[in-house]
This record gives sequence, structure tokens and C-alpha cells, in this order.
Amino acid sequence: MRIAKPLQALIESFEKLPGIGPKSAQRLGFYLLHVPQHELDEFSRNLDRLKKDTLLCSICKNVDEKDPCVICSDPIRDKNTILVVEQPLDLIAFERSGKYKGLYHVLHGAINPLDNIGPDEIFLQLLLDRIKEPGSVLTELIIATNPTMEGEATSMYLTKEIKKMESINLKITRLGMGIPTGADLEYADDITLTQAIEGRREL
Amino acid sequence: MRIAKPLQALIESFEKLPGIGPKSAQRLGFYLLHVPQHELDEFSRNLDRLKKDTLLCSICKNVDEKDPCVICSDPIRDKNTILVVEQPLDLIAFERSGKYKGLYHVLHGAINPLDNIGPDEIFLQLLLDRIKEPGSVLTELIIATNPTMEGEATSMYLTKEIKKMESINLKITRLGMGIPTGADLEYADDITLTQAIEGRREL
Repeated sequence: MRIAKPLQALIESFEKLPGIGPKSAQRLGFYLLHVPQHELDEFSRNLDRLKKDTLLCSICKNVDEKDPCVICSDPIRDKNTILVVEQPLDLIAFERSGKYKGLYHVLHGAINPLDNIGPDEIFLQLLLDRIKEPGSVLTELIIATNPTMEGEATSMYLTKEIKKMESINLKITRLGMGIPTGADLEYADDITLTQAIEGRREL
Repeated sequence: MRIAKPLQALIESFEKLPGIGPKSAQRLGFYLLHVPQHELDEFSRNLDRLKKDTLLCSICKNVDEKDPCVICSDPIRDKNTILVVEQPLDLIAFERSGKYKGLYHVLHGAINPLDNIGPDEIFLQLLLDRIKEPGSVLTELIIATNPTMEGEATSMYLTKEIKKMESINLKITRLGMGIPTGADLEYADDITLTQAIEGRREL
């Protein structure tokens, strides 16, 4: 059975998305047949405009409509700290928690030699330039890359590059590691447990 | 934190889809930021054309580009049987199995009084008209609505309406019910087990 071409084409577009398999893609395609045309038009327009109406902030590479982005141009934000994340979604997660009031830097990836992603493929040089900038009031850099091989490699590379710089006296910190809130100790892996013990705090 | 408007709009479009929650919608939105514009254009065009380039077959209400659809206009198909399904996806499932060579009728729903869906809200009258059509070579109607309350109600209503017709001598059958292939008897529900016993076959 051949599915009608326009429907099949849409199903294939859905299949390309992460986490959507052939079955879900088919279900979504057939579901949209029952949706009013104006909703399809809206969806279609939103896709079309996504990249045309957004840009990356020239300072921190966050996704926004204006440059510099709302965070970089906010006078209330603490200019003494930069929190380094891999992806814009990580930034959103920190903003949701509402505790961090400093600036950000979005790398848009992590160093991953297996995928041919080196320091030049992510916005790392831009961060080094920000640190070196004359008149910078930066005092602390919080590295919040993911606790994966790639995230750790990026963190190490970044730290090494900053230590090389002369006349830069910057506190470099890494996110605290350990047991997440609500987790079950029974199911925690060895590395997490080791890190939780190493990072223990006095009460 | 306010997500850039064009991105937020797309995330909201994804959230309206069945089975996609706020988190997945966000992930899809941010994922598409990294996709080349021509792929976004294609996705957007596919959505836009979906309903404009497809139609429902005037005979069986299957989704296709032409009317009558490929199945209704196929001379090799067995015109003696019609298999009645609720949704186009059910038709695809039967076509995938490749065993059924007759015609179909897609109701686009099932009778569901709780949702105000009566016989007039689905393509049921059209099916009755097909059955009554002078010169019809139809000998069997296979009712393949879902084994749910709504599917059963539709099946019963349809059977009753056909029995009322004078001078129509049609074999009406319902899909066999019982244990699906590969299932674990231990986890089968009571109704399925009862139906499996009732529908037992001699070896």
C-alpha cells in the first residue's frame, strides 16, 4: 500500500526528528489530516520563520530575536560571572531555576574528537576573547558543561587555555557533582557515588 | 526566562500534537534551530500542502491524491468484499499484512454518544448506500472496527441497519477475537481470554 504522496512526505519530515520513530511519524501525519487548515498554516509558518526571525547573540550565542540578547543587555545582571553551557536548552534550565543572576556563554556543542568536533567547531574562542577583553569585570567562570566525556573534555580544555593566559586572574569553577534531589541511592552509579563522597559537605 | 518568540511559537505548535509533551516540544524546537533552512522549508511546505494535495476517495473515504483512490480504481481488487475500518491508519495496517485483496470503507470515526458522535458524524450512510447500490456484486462485509465500546457500538448499529434492508442478502462478519500473536497469556485480560475460549478452533 502506497500512502498518498503529500502525506508520506510529511511523515518523512516527522521521521527525521529526534525521538520520533516511523510509527509515531505516521500517527502524527494522519492526525494532522483532521486538523483545520489554519492550524496547519500556522505550524507551517512557525517552521518557516524559526531561523529567519531568530539569531544568535553576538556576545553569548544565546538564541534570541535581538542582538545583544535580553540577558546580555539586561543592566541588572551580574557582569562578574559567566556560566558556560553546551546548549541553549541548558541555559533555559538554569533560568528556570531562577537562582543564577550572572551572564552566560552558550558553546553550541562540546569537544568530541570521535565526531570531529574540536575547539574550533564550537564557540570557544569567542569565550576566550570575552575573558581577555580589556576592561572586563569578570571574576568567576562557572563551567556547566554536561558531566559526560565530551563535557569533561571541554571543561579541561577551557581551563587549560585560561590558565595559559597571562595577567588573567579568574576563579574557574565546575558545577557540584553528586546525588540529584529525589534520587534513590540504591540505583545511583559508582561514579556518582564516588563524586558524592568526594564532594561531601560539613553540616 | 522568555524563549525567543518565533521559537516559542513553534514549540507551541509541537505541543498541540498528540503524544508530544512540553519537554519534547521544547527539545524539537531547539533541535530544528540546527537544521539547514532548506529542510525547514521542506517540512513547512509538506505541512502546508498536506490537506491541499490530498482528498478523501468519494467511494471509500480513504485518503489519496486521486478520486477514486488507488484501491477503488484497481481492477484486480476483489469487488465482492468490503472491509470496514475506523481510520485510514487501520486500512494501512491491513494493506501492510498483504493478505486482504478486497475493497475498504473508512468510517473516519466510531459511534460515541459521550462525544456526541452519532451515525451521521461518520461516513456510515455512505457505506449503507454502497451496499444498496443497484448492480452491486458485494457478498461479504467484514467489520473491522476497534474492539472498544465505540467500535462495538458501531458494529452493532451497522449490522442492525443492514439486516433491516429488504432484498439484501449479505454475509456480515466481524474480525476474529482472541490472543494476539506473541502475547503472554499471563498478562491477557479476562475479556480477551473469554473471547479466545469462545473463538477456539479445532486442530
